[in-house]
Amino acid sequence: MDMMQSLTDNSEEILAQEHGKAGLVWTGKPAERNSSSQSSPGSCKPQDFSSIYSKELLPHCNGEMSRRFLQELVNILFSYIDKTFDRSSKVLDFHHPHQLKEGLEGFSLELPEQPENLEQLLVDCRDTLKYGVKTGHPRFFNQLSSGLDIVGLAGEWLTSTANTNMFTFEISPVFILMEEIVLKKMHEKVGWEEDKGDGIFCPGGSMCNLYSVLLARYHRFPEVKRKGMAALPKLALFTSEQSHYSIKKAAMVLGIGTENVFVVKCDERGKMIPRELESCLNRARSEGRTPFYVNATAGTTVFGAFDPLPDIADICQRHGLWMHVDAAWGGGLLLSKSHCAKLRGIERASSVTWNPHKMMGVPLQCAALLVREKGLLHECNQLRADYLFQPDKHYDVSYDTGDKSIQCGRHVDVFKLWLMWKAKGSEGFGSQVNRCLENAEYLFNCLRKRPDFELVCKSKPEHSNVCFWYIPPSLRGTPRGPDRDRRLHEVAPKIKAKMMEEGMVMIGYQPLGEKVNFFRCVFSNPATKKEDVDFLLDEIARLGCDL
Amino acid sequence: MDMMQSLTDNSEEILAQEHGKAGLVWTGKPAERNSSSQSSPGSCKPQDFSSIYSKELLPHCNGEMSRRFLQELVNILFSYIDKTFDRSSKVLDFHHPHQLKEGLEGFSLELPEQPENLEQLLVDCRDTLKYGVKTGHPRFFNQLSSGLDIVGLAGEWLTSTANTNMFTFEISPVFILMEEIVLKKMHEKVGWEEDKGDGIFCPGGSMCNLYSVLLARYHRFPEVKRKGMAALPKLALFTSEQSHYSIKKAAMVLGIGTENVFVVKCDERGKMIPRELESCLNRARSEGRTPFYVNATAGTTVFGAFDPLPDIADICQRHGLWMHVDAAWGGGLLLSKSHCAKLRGIERASSVTWNPHKMMGVPLQCAALLVREKGLLHECNQLRADYLFQPDKHYDVSYDTGDKSIQCGRHVDVFKLWLMWKAKGSEGFGSQVNRCLENAEYLFNCLRKRPDFELVCKSKPEHSNVCFWYIPPSLRGTPRGPDRDRRLHEVAPKIKAKMMEEGMVMIGYQPLGEKVNFFRCVFSNPATKKEDVDFLLDEIARLGCDL
Repeated sequence: MDMMQSLTDNSEEILAQEHGKAGLVWTGKPAERNSSSQSSPGSCKPQDFSSIYSKELLPHCNGEMSRRFLQELVNILFSYIDKTFDRSSKVLDFHHPHQLKEGLEGFSLELPEQPENLEQLLVDCRDTLKYGVKTGHPRFFNQLSSGLDIVGLAGEWLTSTANTNMFTFEISPVFILMEEIVLKKMHEKVGWEEDKGDGIFCPGGSMCNLYSVLLARYHRFPEVKRKGMAALPKLALFTSEQSHYSIKKAAMVLGIGTENVFVVKCDERGKMIPRELESCLNRARSEGRTPFYVNATAGTTVFGAFDPLPDIADICQRHGLWMHVDAAWGGGLLLSKSHCAKLRGIERASSVTWNPHKMMGVPLQCAALLVREKGLLHECNQLRADYLFQPDKHYDVSYDTGDKSIQCGRHVDVFKLWLMWKAKGSEGFGSQVNRCLENAEYLFNCLRKRPDFELVCKSKPEHSNVCFWYIPPSLRGTPRGPDRDRRLHEVAPKIKAKMMEEGMVMIGYQPLGEKVNFFRCVFSNPATKKEDVDFLLDEIARLGCDL
Repeated sequence: MDMMQSLTDNSEEILAQEHGKAGLVWTGKPAERNSSSQSSPGSCKPQDFSSIYSKELLPHCNGEMSRRFLQELVNILFSYIDKTFDRSSKVLDFHHPHQLKEGLEGFSLELPEQPENLEQLLVDCRDTLKYGVKTGHPRFFNQLSSGLDIVGLAGEWLTSTANTNMFTFEISPVFILMEEIVLKKMHEKVGWEEDKGDGIFCPGGSMCNLYSVLLARYHRFPEVKRKGMAALPKLALFTSEQSHYSIKKAAMVLGIGTENVFVVKCDERGKMIPRELESCLNRARSEGRTPFYVNATAGTTVFGAFDPLPDIADICQRHGLWMHVDAAWGGGLLLSKSHCAKLRGIERASSVTWNPHKMMGVPLQCAALLVREKGLLHECNQLRADYLFQPDKHYDVSYDTGDKSIQCGRHVDVFKLWLMWKAKGSEGFGSQVNRCLENAEYLFNCLRKRPDFELVCKSKPEHSNVCFWYIPPSLRGTPRGPDRDRRLHEVAPKIKAKMMEEGMVMIGYQPLGEKVNFFRCVFSNPATKKEDVDFLLDEIARLGCDL
């Protein structure tokens, strides 16, 4: 039993004795808590927060109480971190919305007119974590972003304590420079020449993709900024049927309209078919539309497929189109010497979306838009608000990045990535990615061998996505056809429902095209091992065996 | 000297002795550090992180080292928090971009291929804070968002440890419900009936404003989603000349075009003139445009002015227009019984932007868009991505909010606000706002009395913004005119440059219309007292006396 574990257990025991009081803090060494809190009630006695209110914290009073309160919160977080990595602990403790709203075990979500005491706040913090989902648990396979990186977490705690904003160098000198340096490193990994490359960290991959369409439109038709879409021909953009829905969303937001998004067919592995792109381009032109933008995906959401970037780049070059690569999910592979070749051709892109909060395990949110042409972001988005971006400042105002963005205030998302890069080096990120892909291959091989599962794609996964059906005993041997499909479609939701009630593992499912509901397993959590993969399959089989 | 202070000083002393090593952690009680680290080298001996790498943290090794590393980081943060509230400490330690990039005192921003040790990371964390700006310092007057709320900070640390995402109830059960409850409370403060109101937390006020224009357009012309702007008449929207530039930015992004934004004149206090709005509407119509949206500002960025909401609401009602109220800055006043009347009429808005990270002192970012009509956000933005939002889940999927937003993943911005609301109650927020406005009134009264300063607006401030010129001795008595203006325009930048070099206080300046560069002081930091206001004025006078 490690120290963090013992800390957790001790404190929970005592908390229970104290009838649910959470507001106990020791200033003594955690491992000595029990003894010191008993034997020396002086300096090490527990702090009772039940009669203390936030008005006794900084800035109203001195720092001691603030430190004690924050330290107790940190102890709660330590206990949560410990549980996150403990396989015997649940991934989630599921309750329906109405149950949580009714106030489970005194956990009230309602907001008061009068202040509540610090003890109540600490109880609320514990409950918030208790009824949440441990996205860092080794058996959380539900989302592309998972894991809980300790250095990344340290980065987030520091970022929130620094509590500043990315719009000017004046108030974010260090973070602004870190953004420049991290972006430069990312440009290098993409393969852009030294003098190329610009970019910005955005609130998520969908926003990155929206920026890319915005930039492409402005690049081709700069008059749009002033005159709007009314001055433009009817536009058309192109993306594969398995690409992320944010491309359509961007078209909707930017006033292009979803019917002007051409959805290009994919092959059986989920890759865009280049000749289908060509024929979509021809169709768009023949319908009087002006193609200007192609999105290629490097790592699709469901299958993890990589579109053939060199072929798509050739087409874009031939037709004079902006080539965007949505590598939100696949970008991390650029850091792996074994897998980076899967993104060959990305260096020809005009812009790239790459979310370090996915495959690189950086805490949420951390997403970058990379732009090949320097200065374009600024030119496209600037409005020169005098009150924020004064040209007569005494430093080099090219570092005031606020006018490059759609947002005004912009959250500091770069520091945690910068700190993790220092901690792991590019090589460490590479090994982490390799291990995730090894897990995927292990799962793929297990599934090939087991008669109770069926792979959705028969070929070895390129990314860490592995998609499969569980075939319950009642369906084994049933001939393929609409009846089997109808019944198979219900299997995954039923298993998922039971799985969430029990809470020991978590995986997502979805239909895709004509394929009925199947499970999608993704690996991005460095905590996951082969034993977790075994557990997942056995658990699905256990939960589904009577369906 | 309080405990946090002593902690800081001790550790810095020892760090200095250890030749810049930051990686020392004691597991003993902080206050006993000096003695215990000397006398009992057993359990309380300092941890040396210089030979330890991140691969020795979770999940690769047990939790003990992770806890020690995070605890040392927390000690660094405690020291920073203490300095933040210490008036004798600098607000900033300014360096030019090139100086920071060259690697000041060994602080290298460059990213390595190989891992660096944990000691180096902790040194980097200290340096990152050292060269940053203390936005919570009582003498930081530079931005609308300031302060460092201890409970809010606890909320952020928890949020980053929970490391999840707002798109589905499945992975954010508690936070999704908290968002609903906080939004309901905000609707109540705005004055909407019980059955009205929807909303979403967005990455900043500019994004909220963008959402509002998007919703207004969709509400009037739902076909825009599919067909784009090509299917619409030429639109026009309206906002005052002193409103935030994000309205123009939204028009640019959404494909409406900045030339279709009509800029309505303000009176001398910065309030939109209703009859000017009427004439802009007429002009737009006569030019063949279709008005659909009016933005009224409750708390402008520079003057803190409140547009006459009831008059604007009457006009919007008469013309059938969407009325948005940008209360990003002024929204906090709704919580003050003394000041909420300044927002009378906001209850008639179709949508409202309200940033709790400004006047309410919530850590960055925390911004909400409130929408009167239920369901509209979802209808406007949904694209029904099967792989994320499965209709056959076993819980009430109306809590899956991901399809309401432009983003896919959405950062958890609500928890810190929820926790602060518990800690302060609505009443506590109200008192906090009142104190900020009292500080503004105090500054206003000081300025009226001093011969070396001149107020930009002669009337008592409605919000916490106070704008003024410093008149150096060489300009006192100089007749008003272009020559004086030209010289006065240079005063604020020169003082600001010196101020940043010295680092003891920070305030912004800007020109506005025909008014040359003036200082804008804003109060949103509960740590600020009257003595800080006195300090600010004396410091400006000291730095500017020889200009």
